[in-house]
Amino acid sequence: MKTVGIVGLGLIGGSMGLDLKARGFASRVLGVEQDPLSADAAVRLGLADEIVNLDMCVAQSDIIVVAVPVGTAVKMVPEILGMIGADKVVIDVCSTKEQICLATKYCPNRGRFVSTHPMAGTEYSGPWAAMPNLFDGRACIFANPEESDPSALKIIEEMYAVLNMRPIYMDAAQHDVHTAYVSHISHITSFALALTVLEKEKDEKHIFDLASGGFSSTVRLAKSNADMWVPILTQNRDNVLRVIDTYLDKMKEFRDAVAAYDEARIRELIQEANRIKKIIR
Amino acid sequence: MKTVGIVGLGLIGGSMGLDLKARGFASRVLGVEQDPLSADAAVRLGLADEIVNLDMCVAQSDIIVVAVPVGTAVKMVPEILGMIGADKVVIDVCSTKEQICLATKYCPNRGRFVSTHPMAGTEYSGPWAAMPNLFDGRACIFANPEESDPSALKIIEEMYAVLNMRPIYMDAAQHDVHTAYVSHISHITSFALALTVLEKEKDEKHIFDLASGGFSSTVRLAKSNADMWVPILTQNRDNVLRVIDTYLDKMKEFRDAVAAYDEARIRELIQEANRIKKIIR
Repeated sequence: MKTVGIVGLGLIGGSMGLDLKARGFASRVLGVEQDPLSADAAVRLGLADEIVNLDMCVAQSDIIVVAVPVGTAVKMVPEILGMIGADKVVIDVCSTKEQICLATKYCPNRGRFVSTHPMAGTEYSGPWAAMPNLFDGRACIFANPEESDPSALKIIEEMYAVLNMRPIYMDAAQHDVHTAYVSHISHITSFALALTVLEKEKDEKHIFDLASGGFSSTVRLAKSNADMWVPILTQNRDNVLRVIDTYLDKMKEFRDAVAAYDEARIRELIQEANRIKKIIR
Repeated sequence: MKTVGIVGLGLIGGSMGLDLKARGFASRVLGVEQDPLSADAAVRLGLADEIVNLDMCVAQSDIIVVAVPVGTAVKMVPEILGMIGADKVVIDVCSTKEQICLATKYCPNRGRFVSTHPMAGTEYSGPWAAMPNLFDGRACIFANPEESDPSALKIIEEMYAVLNMRPIYMDAAQHDVHTAYVSHISHITSFALALTVLEKEKDEKHIFDLASGGFSSTVRLAKSNADMWVPILTQNRDNVLRVIDTYLDKMKEFRDAVAAYDEARIRELIQEANRIKKIIR
C-alpha cells in the first residue's frame, strides 16, 4: 500500500482520495489545500487523512497527484519534479494536456511524471463536490505515455484500475483537439445559453416555471467554475476557436432555415443531429 | 369518472393516458393513433384501453386531448370543435400557443377548448417513451384561459391537478416569447452542438471515450424528434430568431475573449453565466 499525496482537494482530487483510501490502494492520503475552509472540510469529509504543506506532501508520498487548475499545474509539476527522486511518481489530472507536456518535457525526472485526464466530473467544485465512485467505468486518457518511465506508468495504470477507469493512450496535442470538439465546446455552448437566457428573460420566475428537464440539462455545465475553465480555454485556444467557428456556422444554418420557413431544411438538420443517438446514450 | 380520448399516443399523450387511468380520473381511455405499430404498442403498454377512429373518439369521450405535433393540431382542433356540443371539452398540449389560439379564436364552441402546455417531457418520442409520473411537480401553462368557458377550464384544472401539475395562466403570445427563451433555444443549441461534434469528430470512438457526463447532458436534446420540432420552430419563428441572434452575440463575445487571451473577460462571462445556479437546480 502507498502513501498518496493530493495537491488540491476539490471535486477530482477529493474524489480520488476517497476511493483510493476506501479501496485499499492508499494506506494514507496526504492533502495539500491552501484554502483553510476547504482544508478543514476535506479532512471532515474523509478526502484526506491529514493536511500538510507541499514540501511535506512531496517528501512523504509515493504518488503525488496534482489536481489544481491547469494554469497552476503547468508551474507546479516542474517544481515538484525538481524535488523528487526516482522512487516517486507525479501525475496531473488536468483537462488540457499539450501545454503541461511541453512544460515538463526537459524537466529533471520527466520519466517520473505521468500526464493523465480522467474523463469524469460534475458541474460542481470544491471538497463538498467530491464523491465516491465518480470515476467508475469512465475513460482515463494517458497523454504522451512514451515520455514516462514504464515503471511509473505501471503504478499509475494500477491506480486508475482501482478507480475502475479504462485507460486510453493518446498524443497530448491530439487529446487537446478531441477534447475541444467534445468537452470544451459543450461548456461554452452552455455558458452562452445561460448568458442568453439571463439577458432575454429578466423574470426568474418564468425561467423556473418554463424550464422543463431539457433546459436544466443543457444549461447544467454553465454552473462550472471559472478558476478551472479560464485556463483550459486559454491553453487550448486554437482548437477552441476552430470548434466555436464550426459551431457558429451550424447555428447560422439553423437560423437561415428557420428564417426562410424552410421546413425541409430544418428537418434535415434535426435528423442529421439525431445521429448522435447512435453514439451517446 | 370520465372517458378521456387521446389523439396521438406518443410521449405526452401516452403518459397522460397512463396516469389518468391509474389515478382514477379516467374510467376509460380511448386512443386515436394512425401508425399501426404505435397503435398496437400503445394498447400493449396500457396507454389506452382501445384504439378507435377520430369520430368515435370524439363521440364517446368527455375530454378530448389533442397530443399531435402543433402543425397538425392547428387544423385538427377547429375540426373537432365543429363536431362537439357543450358537454365536452377539447384540449391541446402543444409547445407553441399563439397560432393555435388564433386558429381557434372564431371557431364554434371556442369556449369548450382549453389550450395547455404541460412543461414536461424527455428527448424520446412515441408510445415507447411514455412513462408514469412524467408530469408530477412540473408547471402546466394555460394559454388565454379567459377564452375558455369557466366550466371547461375547471374540468381541465382538475385533470392537471390529478397529474400533480402547478397551473400557470399566461397570454398565448407571451407564452411563446418565454418558451423561445427558455425551451426552444435549448433544443437549437443542442442540435447545433451535435452537428458540430459530428462534423469535427469523425471518429465515433473518440466521441464515446471523451464524452464525460457533461457532453451527454448538453447534447441530450439533440435526440429530439423532427416531427415535433419542425412545426414548433416555424410557428414560433420570430421569437426563435430573436433568441438565436442574442445567442450568436453571446457566443461571439466568448470567442473574442478567448481569441484575445483575455482571461479577465472570460472569467467575467463565466461568472455571469454561473448566476443560473440561483435559478436552476
